[in-house]
Amino acid sequence: MSFFNKYLAATKKNESYVCVGLDSDITKLPSIVKTESNPLLVFNKRIIDETHQYVACYKINMAFYLALGGDGVEVVKKTIEYIPDNIPVIIDIKAGDIGNTMEQYAFSVFRYFKADAMTINILMGSDVVNACFTIEDSFCFALVLTSNPSAKQYFTHNDLYKKLAIIVNKFGHERIGAVVGATRSDDFNELRELMPETIFLIPGVGAQGGDLNSVCENAIYTKDDARILVNSSRAIIYANSTDRYAETAGKEAKLLRERITELIGNETGLWQKRKRHHL
Amino acid sequence: MSFFNKYLAATKKNESYVCVGLDSDITKLPSIVKTESNPLLVFNKRIIDETHQYVACYKINMAFYLALGGDGVEVVKKTIEYIPDNIPVIIDIKAGDIGNTMEQYAFSVFRYFKADAMTINILMGSDVVNACFTIEDSFCFALVLTSNPSAKQYFTHNDLYKKLAIIVNKFGHERIGAVVGATRSDDFNELRELMPETIFLIPGVGAQGGDLNSVCENAIYTKDDARILVNSSRAIIYANSTDRYAETAGKEAKLLRERITELIGNETGLWQKRKRHHL
Repeated sequence: MSFFNKYLAATKKNESYVCVGLDSDITKLPSIVKTESNPLLVFNKRIIDETHQYVACYKINMAFYLALGGDGVEVVKKTIEYIPDNIPVIIDIKAGDIGNTMEQYAFSVFRYFKADAMTINILMGSDVVNACFTIEDSFCFALVLTSNPSAKQYFTHNDLYKKLAIIVNKFGHERIGAVVGATRSDDFNELRELMPETIFLIPGVGAQGGDLNSVCENAIYTKDDARILVNSSRAIIYANSTDRYAETAGKEAKLLRERITELIGNETGLWQKRKRHHL
Repeated sequence: MSFFNKYLAATKKNESYVCVGLDSDITKLPSIVKTESNPLLVFNKRIIDETHQYVACYKINMAFYLALGGDGVEVVKKTIEYIPDNIPVIIDIKAGDIGNTMEQYAFSVFRYFKADAMTINILMGSDVVNACFTIEDSFCFALVLTSNPSAKQYFTHNDLYKKLAIIVNKFGHERIGAVVGATRSDDFNELRELMPETIFLIPGVGAQGGDLNSVCENAIYTKDDARILVNSSRAIIYANSTDRYAETAGKEAKLLRERITELIGNETGLWQKRKRHHL
């Protein structure tokens, strides 16, 4: 099943727009898993056990695993095998290269690791996306506007992010989503107008994220089909460093799910008044 | 030793500005190595045996190895261990992410794989570079203008590439280089003016590359210290698909080295007339 359909089904079944980021850092693991033969995998499995009923998606950040070489990379594969089939998985690798190289990244993500989607950086242009699309049922999330301190240097250079948003929309919401930084709440309404039906992957919102209000008011598509994925990594997986880390992660994921549901239910958002491009 | 100093020493010792790209694709290996227990590693080692005296650098494209999972990634490590210490190695991964993730990529490249440099994509801004610099003696090559067909979509959007070039120059040529596409020969002179002392990593030039003339005329710093790396991958490593593939690779690398030397020696280039920013 395609990422897009899996996403729609998982958001309905689990009534959730939460994406848990498995940015699992070997140096930050609770002592209880450190004695395991494969501590990173055990850590991930227990987090998945306790969170999978509250999430719409998992995101695995390749950098944290590549730092451990071949063994780390194999943890990515085994983690994806462990995630229930109905929950889609994004590999966060922000790949962006020429055609023949992008085909290798796409093969890697969709065929070797068997993920459902990957993040990409389209600075090098449409070649990046076209190469991903050579794999059937592939799905990409392109960086459109990010949440880090220096993001304004280039994304807002002569409104580059708008140009990126327009291209993402043209490629079609069933094949490509947008990474949209959560600190840019003022821009959410504008981005949704440019990409009416696109799934927004929104990092930078922890359990206490100040901009969650704005995300739920301005970034959603409709109340019943929000087309968002609110990613939280550190605020969930490291919420508790004791041997109760996984249960706490489950509670935090459930809490985030409920806060999002409540905020979307407020019906005060701009989305209701929004004049969509496709209407 | 830092990448910058290794580069200067290797270009002098081998009288070369050639970078051989080890974009080794498991599906394209000659039949003679296919029966080996680790065909990709054997392929790389033989190429290195025959080329190392003619090159200034090797570049390893992570995508081709990641496509084989953990085993592939370990070939990267073993290939780098095999490359003579005096030849610097770039891991081509075009990484670009927020601070804590970039630190993982940097740890991976410089500490796990023990490469000398990595390629980065600075669309997300200076955070990308600053995180790399947390590792001592790290060196990055930032994408400034690439050679793929769709590169004009964003790099030239309101002269974004010039802004990228100016930032790269500011960070300092001993820590950061620039990836500059070889099909953009008209821009080489302008880019060199913006980044007078920066090492240019120039992909897209095969043994028969039509723009090599322009690279050697317009992209160099000085005749004796050109500050370029002309990368060739497929035109060298797949020049011959028989069991003589490695010897042919050596011949092609030597030929490319000689063509570059000859063209730089022509002394017809703009570099002589160039009014450099630092003068």
